[in-house]
Amino acid sequence: MIIYFRTMRTKDDEKEAALFEATVKLVNEIGFASSSVSKIAREAGVSPATIYVYYKNKEDLLLCTYIGIKLDLSKALLRNFDDKLPIRDILRSVWFNMFEFISNNLEYYKFVEQFSNSPFSSLVDRQEVEQYFVPLLNVLQTGIEQKIIKNVSFDILTAFMYHPITVLANPGLCQDFKLSEENIETAFTLAWDAIKL
Amino acid sequence: MIIYFRTMRTKDDEKEAALFEATVKLVNEIGFASSSVSKIAREAGVSPATIYVYYKNKEDLLLCTYIGIKLDLSKALLRNFDDKLPIRDILRSVWFNMFEFISNNLEYYKFVEQFSNSPFSSLVDRQEVEQYFVPLLNVLQTGIEQKIIKNVSFDILTAFMYHPITVLANPGLCQDFKLSEENIETAFTLAWDAIKL
Repeated sequence: MIIYFRTMRTKDDEKEAALFEATVKLVNEIGFASSSVSKIAREAGVSPATIYVYYKNKEDLLLCTYIGIKLDLSKALLRNFDDKLPIRDILRSVWFNMFEFISNNLEYYKFVEQFSNSPFSSLVDRQEVEQYFVPLLNVLQTGIEQKIIKNVSFDILTAFMYHPITVLANPGLCQDFKLSEENIETAFTLAWDAIKL
Repeated sequence: MIIYFRTMRTKDDEKEAALFEATVKLVNEIGFASSSVSKIAREAGVSPATIYVYYKNKEDLLLCTYIGIKLDLSKALLRNFDDKLPIRDILRSVWFNMFEFISNNLEYYKFVEQFSNSPFSSLVDRQEVEQYFVPLLNVLQTGIEQKIIKNVSFDILTAFMYHPITVLANPGLCQDFKLSEENIETAFTLAWDAIKL
């Protein structure tokens, strides 16, 4: 798994990747409050001092981990992105990409959910994160202008285009849904019917 | 807020309600791993021994809290339920009820999400929980038989009928969505378009 970061860093990428994975793992296991810098360092196999080479403090580490996952997600969604295709085909491709990303990275998704519901979420520069998804938002906007997609807020459109995936691809929430191409295609039919005009 | 429990209990209901709220609060704040019986007791203002009057152990307390929330949710969804109405009207009423329940009880929803993603979820008797929602599942089944609703699995139908609400009603995930009757109605249009044949 390739991990993308907010800023280009020239220091030890392996240590940074280890910190990233350790942060996700520990927060998911014991929560934000108990995940101290020293515990995360131990989990990652680095010294606590090393963390401060990369991050200002615990908040910075948590924030960068969140941003890193969002960037990772946006790159996964935009794989094979071709805005010359019909809108339905573009969204179908994004739909399949997201199923793959979520089902392969449930622990990332769990971290993001917890982070979003925590006080740390106020630290996020939401405009920066939105930037990663601009090509997708542009597709929806074009669809609205061409009267292909319902003229409702992006919040509503994405709640139907993407959020059902986070349930269906999560065996903890949806034990009976088999991740077959046929089932993912069927689910896309409902997503498309929801948003199309 | 009235809290419903799985079994009728004749002991001190106030203490039990305090334990319920303390469990939700503490697990959401510090996670499952760190939420010990003694910390939950302190948060609820009861002695640790009291917990064992009501619950076998920590697992039992967590499980009963989860089941209690699910029962609470099902009763909220089924408020003013009238299966003689047209299917769209029944589901619209459930849609509004769920928006109200989730937005008023975000902390319960957060607990349920965390619980579902934890190893404790294997303790749940899923058939028992499904029982609470049978009237709703019956509406969907009737809709499928009358060729009003798409003949796809309940997992898919509920991912579109109910899960978008958990995003839209959660300001942590969806800062810009205003919980007005008009917006909730608009969102229902998309849900209905998703599932209708």
